[in-house]
Amino acid sequence: MEKQNRSGTAGKVIRCKGSAVCRNPGEPLVIEEIMVDPPKAWEIRIKILCTSLCHSDVTFWKISIGPFALFPRIFGHEAVGVVESVGEHVEEFQEGDMVVPVFRPNCRECRDCKSQKGNGCSIFGDKLVAEMPRDGTSRFKGMNGETLHHFLSVSSFSEYTVVDVVHVVKISSEFPAEKACLLSCGVSSGTSLMLMWMTGIGAAWKVADIEEGSTVAIFGLGAVGLAVAEGARLRGASKIIGVDLNQEKFEIGKKFGVSEFINPATCGEKKVIKEITDGGVDYSFECIGLASLMEEAFNSSRANWGKTVILGVEMHNTPLAINTYFLLRGRTVTGCFFGGLKAKSDIPILAQKYLHKEINLDGFITHEVNFQDINKAFDLLLEGKSLRCIIWMD
Amino acid sequence: MEKQNRSGTAGKVIRCKGSAVCRNPGEPLVIEEIMVDPPKAWEIRIKILCTSLCHSDVTFWKISIGPFALFPRIFGHEAVGVVESVGEHVEEFQEGDMVVPVFRPNCRECRDCKSQKGNGCSIFGDKLVAEMPRDGTSRFKGMNGETLHHFLSVSSFSEYTVVDVVHVVKISSEFPAEKACLLSCGVSSGTSLMLMWMTGIGAAWKVADIEEGSTVAIFGLGAVGLAVAEGARLRGASKIIGVDLNQEKFEIGKKFGVSEFINPATCGEKKVIKEITDGGVDYSFECIGLASLMEEAFNSSRANWGKTVILGVEMHNTPLAINTYFLLRGRTVTGCFFGGLKAKSDIPILAQKYLHKEINLDGFITHEVNFQDINKAFDLLLEGKSLRCIIWMD
Ligand SMILES: NC(=O)c1ccc[n+]([C@@H]2O[C@H](COP(=O)([O-])OP(=O)(O)OC[C@H]3O[C@@H](n4cnc5c(N)ncnc54)[C@H](O)[C@@H]3O)[C@@H](O)[C@H]2O)c1
Ligand SMILES: NC(=O)c1ccc[n+]([C@@H]2O[C@H](COP(=O)([O-])OP(=O)(O)OC[C@H]3O[C@@H](n4cnc5c(N)ncnc54)[C@H](O)[C@@H]3O)[C@@H](O)[C@H]2O)c1
Ligand SMILES: [Zn+2]
Ligand SMILES: [Zn+2]
Ligand SMILES: [Zn+2]
Ligand SMILES: [Zn+2]
Repeated sequence: MEKQNRSGTAGKVIRCKGSAVCRNPGEPLVIEEIMVDPPKAWEIRIKILCTSLCHSDVTFWKISIGPFALFPRIFGHEAVGVVESVGEHVEEFQEGDMVVPVFRPNCRECRDCKSQKGNGCSIFGDKLVAEMPRDGTSRFKGMNGETLHHFLSVSSFSEYTVVDVVHVVKISSEFPAEKACLLSCGVSSGTSLMLMWMTGIGAAWKVADIEEGSTVAIFGLGAVGLAVAEGARLRGASKIIGVDLNQEKFEIGKKFGVSEFINPATCGEKKVIKEITDGGVDYSFECIGLASLMEEAFNSSRANWGKTVILGVEMHNTPLAINTYFLLRGRTVTGCFFGGLKAKSDIPILAQKYLHKEINLDGFITHEVNFQDINKAFDLLLEGKSLRCIIWMD
Repeated sequence: MEKQNRSGTAGKVIRCKGSAVCRNPGEPLVIEEIMVDPPKAWEIRIKILCTSLCHSDVTFWKISIGPFALFPRIFGHEAVGVVESVGEHVEEFQEGDMVVPVFRPNCRECRDCKSQKGNGCSIFGDKLVAEMPRDGTSRFKGMNGETLHHFLSVSSFSEYTVVDVVHVVKISSEFPAEKACLLSCGVSSGTSLMLMWMTGIGAAWKVADIEEGSTVAIFGLGAVGLAVAEGARLRGASKIIGVDLNQEKFEIGKKFGVSEFINPATCGEKKVIKEITDGGVDYSFECIGLASLMEEAFNSSRANWGKTVILGVEMHNTPLAINTYFLLRGRTVTGCFFGGLKAKSDIPILAQKYLHKEINLDGFITHEVNFQDINKAFDLLLEGKSLRCIIWMD
């Protein structure tokens, strides 16, 4: 039944030396030995090459009450890896394929996946916090047998993880297993960042559809916000206004096309944006995750055709309060996960461009650490020192 | 300087026998004799033929505190009339022209008016409650000399009114003054309804851009909501779900294409809509003016590409609270005044179609009263008995 693999591990539980388990909300992760079940039908087990830390990991890592507070848990959702073994019925992947796990499912069969619009999946839904999507169970166990929860159907802070086929994309057949060593350098680190980058570029290109000469405001100059800036710059935006509390983000922002900077700690950003742009920006983006900033982003957009795109995952689940009269004056607010892109069709195209050096993600990699030092990646992001810290498996 | 007109009234104050003055919020209007100043530069004075009552009049009529509570005041903003005289610099209009005053200014010179997008005007803005837009003063006085406030730059509940040229559209040169008697029938009553109708059709066609086969939910089956239904029906929507507390709206809704009815008093509309449409509608519209219903409309739209269009003018200025996670899943919310249409270019085209009977507005006219009985129009709308009541000047 199980196709055997090179290392003889297919079909067996893997005792995995390195997994970063989060035992309690907000606490440092603990590198533990854990057990990773073999993939069930329509699942694959992946050996992670490298992963990176995104603010969405941090948001859920902090949540201590309610249905989203699931611990112990394995976080991580930006990664690149190599297929170790595949479960029954899996035709799309085979051992050695280089793959990118994605939190947004893409079954390619449902009405939503087949539609040109959006990037949701009506069969697999978007339960951001689920275990394995088909049977709702976990493939991770602690050495004492306790269940460890998954995160965003990816859980990449582990040497091995199991992911459903609707949550994985093969990125290139140019990179078979024999050349896996090649991947352990810039290519895989960049590929792991592609998800963050596509979130920003997709939002600027596909969701906002920024035209040449437009004015743009970006709230939050983290990796996601800077990827939006890059997208706006490539589209020929005339002004790209960056809003961030962290003064250090201003210098780096310039590299990504940010032309004006506003620090809300020292001035009221809304009024300033209206002044700089003679009434408001054509497009505004929220890349922080706070309802109050989403409201500022909306209010800073111009009447008549201003469009606000929400990318931030609200940290406290606070609703966004919108002045309805501002809406009547022709403003629009929308949002997207993963830049509105469809994982299975869009990732391979962009990965190809990345592999052929048409896309440069180097600027986003500000730090690199070994897996043992994963908590340092948290510190760096929380202190506002890193855009993306690449975390290398050994 | 002043061009003289046929009746010799140009340039003089008109003692106008019939104006319906609202002296206090929520109180019946009082038909009074008032004084109407001659038009200043860029203004025209209009003799109103007929007018109708819209819920927006009612919303502002009820407001008793804050900057929007301006009394005594002359309400009314849906109307058709004939130019009595014109002020200095007015080239676009002359005595006898049949015109439609519009609350949405359209100067045709500014960046917004010249743009293909939206229908705002960045020079004249959209101060919904202003007096004359250029000098901020009123052209109405009571017989004791007191100032009477304008409404939406139109104030059509008066035999004569003064309107800025950016707030008036000439509807047809086929109807010169000599044939004005002709207008005093179906044509003028229908023309006065065109604004309401364009609000709904424009929202369905231009703002939502409903495609064939789409599912649609309309919250509020007043005249505006039914005009949206008509627009959705003409676009070939597969399901048009009407939501209204008034059971009587259901029968009339069928005439405008409403295929399913939900009375929220007897069932939870949100869940029912999700069931009928397998996950939510493609397009939802709020045509009531309550933030809570706007939220329901948003929540009843489907993930991934659902779009909600707000038309209702919120009665209590309550903000709309939006679940940001629902936005991230690809929903959009927007709004528009006057269906996103540009008054000066779109009204003449549609008026022409109406005059040539390509558009039928008869179904919207449920009642007709003489100007003396204008308060009856309020009663009928408040009791939910009328869609539009035509109010005839004598
Ligand atoms: N929609 C998606 O698909 C998607 C994908 C990835 C990340 N995200 C979300 O996007 C957001 C940004 O992620 P990131 O990884 O770039 O985070 P980040 O921590 O790198 O960047 C956030 C930036 O916001 C700034 N900031 C924080 N509070 C602020 C405030 N009050 N005013 C102004 N600036 C403030 C910080 O200084 C920082 O520069 C997060 O909410 C994350 O969960 C969404
Ligand atoms: N955006 C614009 O350009 C524009 C133009 C005209 C009117 N409007 C606004 O559109 C809205 C509708 O105007 P109209 O003239 O059609 O009003 P209307 O009074 O004729 O219709 C409102 C309908 O909503 C229903 N309703 C009221 N409360 C309800 C509730 N809680 N649940 C369900 N149904 C409810 C009523 O029964 C009625 O059928 C108003 O807010 C008005 O101010 C906006
Ligand atoms: Zn992320
Ligand atoms: Zn799908
Ligand atoms: Zn109206
Ligand atoms: Zn203008």
